[in-house]
Amino acid sequence: MLRFDVVTAVPELLESPFAHSIMKRARDRKLLEVVVHDLRKYGLGRHQQIDDYQYGGGAGMVMMIEPIHACFKDLQQQRHYEEIIYLAPDGERFNQSIANELSLKGNILLLCGHYKGVDERVRQHLITREISIGDYVLSGAELAAAVVVDAVGRLLPGVLNNEESALSDSFQDNLIAPPVYTRPADYQGWQVPSVLTSGHEARIQAWRYQEAINRTRERRPDLIRDEEI
Amino acid sequence: MLRFDVVTAVPELLESPFAHSIMKRARDRKLLEVVVHDLRKYGLGRHQQIDDYQYGGGAGMVMMIEPIHACFKDLQQQRHYEEIIYLAPDGERFNQSIANELSLKGNILLLCGHYKGVDERVRQHLITREISIGDYVLSGAELAAAVVVDAVGRLLPGVLNNEESALSDSFQDNLIAPPVYTRPADYQGWQVPSVLTSGHEARIQAWRYQEAINRTRERRPDLIRDEEI
Repeated sequence: MLRFDVVTAVPELLESPFAHSIMKRARDRKLLEVVVHDLRKYGLGRHQQIDDYQYGGGAGMVMMIEPIHACFKDLQQQRHYEEIIYLAPDGERFNQSIANELSLKGNILLLCGHYKGVDERVRQHLITREISIGDYVLSGAELAAAVVVDAVGRLLPGVLNNEESALSDSFQDNLIAPPVYTRPADYQGWQVPSVLTSGHEARIQAWRYQEAINRTRERRPDLIRDEEI
Repeated sequence: MLRFDVVTAVPELLESPFAHSIMKRARDRKLLEVVVHDLRKYGLGRHQQIDDYQYGGGAGMVMMIEPIHACFKDLQQQRHYEEIIYLAPDGERFNQSIANELSLKGNILLLCGHYKGVDERVRQHLITREISIGDYVLSGAELAAAVVVDAVGRLLPGVLNNEESALSDSFQDNLIAPPVYTRPADYQGWQVPSVLTSGHEARIQAWRYQEAINRTRERRPDLIRDEEI
């Protein structure tokens, strides 16, 4: 079983994303465990302070190292984490290959930044890896954590049912998935390609492969730059 | 005010991400409206069917065009959408510049795929744009929609308070943000760089700029490839 511990200052943001659909099923089947921890419990003083003004001045509160370290120490007393990941826009870019890699781990700790981010010393000393889900800034990293848990969790054997099979997904073979169609065969004059209703299995497979290549060349030539096709 | 209408087969996944923190504040301040629509209401027949097997065979259910079109027609009777966006892993890569662009719009419709995706004719005829939040596959596009709404919503004037100011964020100037520090100045022997506690404003600014350049060169040389610094 893969376990994610998610440390956040806004745990309520993560109530619904893991409570429904495929992530719920993964948890019900005991294939995935996701535990969200409220960083404020480790906050300093009567106000459970977790952030403060930045040294050198400037707008933006910074999350303090002490509550984060206290939280990590508490969690690390209970289990060993193979990765302690800080989700940051300037981290290593998350992709399907990292998702595959993380799906083989046992315990992963995810730290969500908020406001201007965390004290740099957290990044230097307390984590093993920094991951970004893309070149954009979010109001907090909670959605980034949800994205990582979802992308990784669905790869665990037994999570997806056959009808959701991950094998033909985009990126698994460096190709964009070919177009898909379902009923009706004719909708307002927009037709399904006749090959798909031909019943000719070999032609269908050839068509899909060619469409995947065409689509990848057109939309994401970078994926096949170094491949021979 | 910017309004997002989000069409999804799993609306319950999106209950918490817009209900707290900065997105809640944006909605409370009437700067952002987010309305989630349950695609099943437009499903076919007694079972409100929204997906079916794919033509040509193979694992994976495909979302049918008819319920999606019925939903779109219903929504479009009430307002005009400047963009109708299908969130797909092979779409245009979402980034801060697209977030800036979308933050200037009035009404945006987001369509979330689930299972194997939507019938290709939806992509050909019913949408204006395809956006991907990154090179990974999610169990559904609901989290991708949440990411887009969050990244765009926080840019709306008046949403962020000064302490969250977006101006010094990564990507806004093609530079990764410099490191930030807060109290204590010494934590277990890990020190804050002395320049930040010097009180010398010009030196602090120069240090931050140099750190931003160093960090960008090291982590994301692609961002400054074409720039002269």
